[in-house]
Amino acid sequence: MERKKITIVGVGLIGGSLALQLNEKGMAAGIIGVESSLSHAAKALELGLVDEILPLEEAVKQSAVIVLAIPVDRMVELLPKVLDLVDHQIVFDAGSTKSQLISRVKDHPKRGRYVATHPMWGTEYSGPEAAVKSAFENKAVVICNAGESDADAVNWVKLVYKKIGMHLLEMDAVAHDIHAAYVSHISHITSFALANTVLEKEREDRAIFELASAGFESTVRLAKSNSAMWVPIFMQNRDNVLDVLNEHISQLRKFKSCLEKENYEYLQELIENANRIGKILK
Amino acid sequence: MERKKITIVGVGLIGGSLALQLNEKGMAAGIIGVESSLSHAAKALELGLVDEILPLEEAVKQSAVIVLAIPVDRMVELLPKVLDLVDHQIVFDAGSTKSQLISRVKDHPKRGRYVATHPMWGTEYSGPEAAVKSAFENKAVVICNAGESDADAVNWVKLVYKKIGMHLLEMDAVAHDIHAAYVSHISHITSFALANTVLEKEREDRAIFELASAGFESTVRLAKSNSAMWVPIFMQNRDNVLDVLNEHISQLRKFKSCLEKENYEYLQELIENANRIGKILK
Repeated sequence: MERKKITIVGVGLIGGSLALQLNEKGMAAGIIGVESSLSHAAKALELGLVDEILPLEEAVKQSAVIVLAIPVDRMVELLPKVLDLVDHQIVFDAGSTKSQLISRVKDHPKRGRYVATHPMWGTEYSGPEAAVKSAFENKAVVICNAGESDADAVNWVKLVYKKIGMHLLEMDAVAHDIHAAYVSHISHITSFALANTVLEKEREDRAIFELASAGFESTVRLAKSNSAMWVPIFMQNRDNVLDVLNEHISQLRKFKSCLEKENYEYLQELIENANRIGKILK
Repeated sequence: MERKKITIVGVGLIGGSLALQLNEKGMAAGIIGVESSLSHAAKALELGLVDEILPLEEAVKQSAVIVLAIPVDRMVELLPKVLDLVDHQIVFDAGSTKSQLISRVKDHPKRGRYVATHPMWGTEYSGPEAAVKSAFENKAVVICNAGESDADAVNWVKLVYKKIGMHLLEMDAVAHDIHAAYVSHISHITSFALANTVLEKEREDRAIFELASAGFESTVRLAKSNSAMWVPIFMQNRDNVLDVLNEHISQLRKFKSCLEKENYEYLQELIENANRIGKILK
């Protein structure tokens, strides 16, 4: 696999972790960062995530590949501009929502150069210092509407993700956004809401956190996630997230009703049904 | 610290992990298991968690310490019977709820020999094969109503938990049960409900689990937890769990309302408020 000069727009958790993998797996002939935050830019250079920081136009000109790893609201604004600058380069993104982004460039003359992807990995941290080695490995990556992209671009992007150790899945953007609401977006909302539930209680009682158990930390971990990333995801995937949130609230109401009515047989059934998740996850 | 002969009633995840620690930290002069499940008893012997399996009466007679690590409904039945058998021995339990248990033996002539504790550690797995080394370390342990126990018993139990590396907290059983609802019990309900939400969807679409992200696995991990352990916890702590569940549903409704009304400023506020959990947890 020939090394390519790669630009990463947004050198945070995702962009930075991707930079580490591209270097480690020998896929990059130099990495250029494009970064609107001066402190993130400085940190990315200091950590060796990128070789240099350049303005977008200059970076695109010098690169064979451009990766977008910025919040999905800014992605929707930036992707058409990047495609305006592109000649033969490959462009791909790592955003958590796909429908709006793909619609936005549907009729762009350079649409073929763009590959829409969602590597299903992340942590609750953000910024270049949150970048970690071995990110993405053994997780799924979704490639959306591959038929709208040029074959050479899709093939190269697939090779990259395979080298990183990801499982490739293809689906259309609409299906992706529904699935992402179930297996990623709702987890964040429950975690944010759980944190707020306990923080509400903590107003009267600070001692509560001394007791935080391993289980609590696990379910509430995602509540540390960045609003700049998540508000745009919820905006773009509003309808699907609302559907899943309604279903989730109605599932919680079943537990509530069991407790209110002291119907412990049904409570046991609900728990045993939930246990099936273990067989399915691994 | 003088080694003592210790009986563990219930050699599962908690009892088995405690056995490993008691041996490793040199606190046990032999460990006797009392176990109603024949397969768990055989497994506990095979794994070397206990030296022998004996009937309860015989085990109590031969031991200086008796630990109860069984589901809290069975604990409430068994604790008075164990105290009936006790002379000078120390008895402590590792149950997740404390009020009913402590009330049950309030007037028992041997109440002083019993120390009510809740080591705030666990995993979603159960049975002796789920026992792990280094369990409990760096987690909190709550000792409830210590004033109702004999000083020598409390002191010995505290020493044990300190040797294992736990942080000691003391509170009354009523406060414990409220706090446990917030930092442990509600996490399990949200996780069970989240699993059921996604499993409901999975009926139409099996592909959904191929996408499961790290975040999803983290929030849904506890949904693998055993109903035999959790139904009795929810029964005994019903009122507190209902309070917290109602608060949690109302926090989720705020997210729902933000999305419905497209009030993204308030959504951002809710997320930023939830982010405070990061500062508090570590």
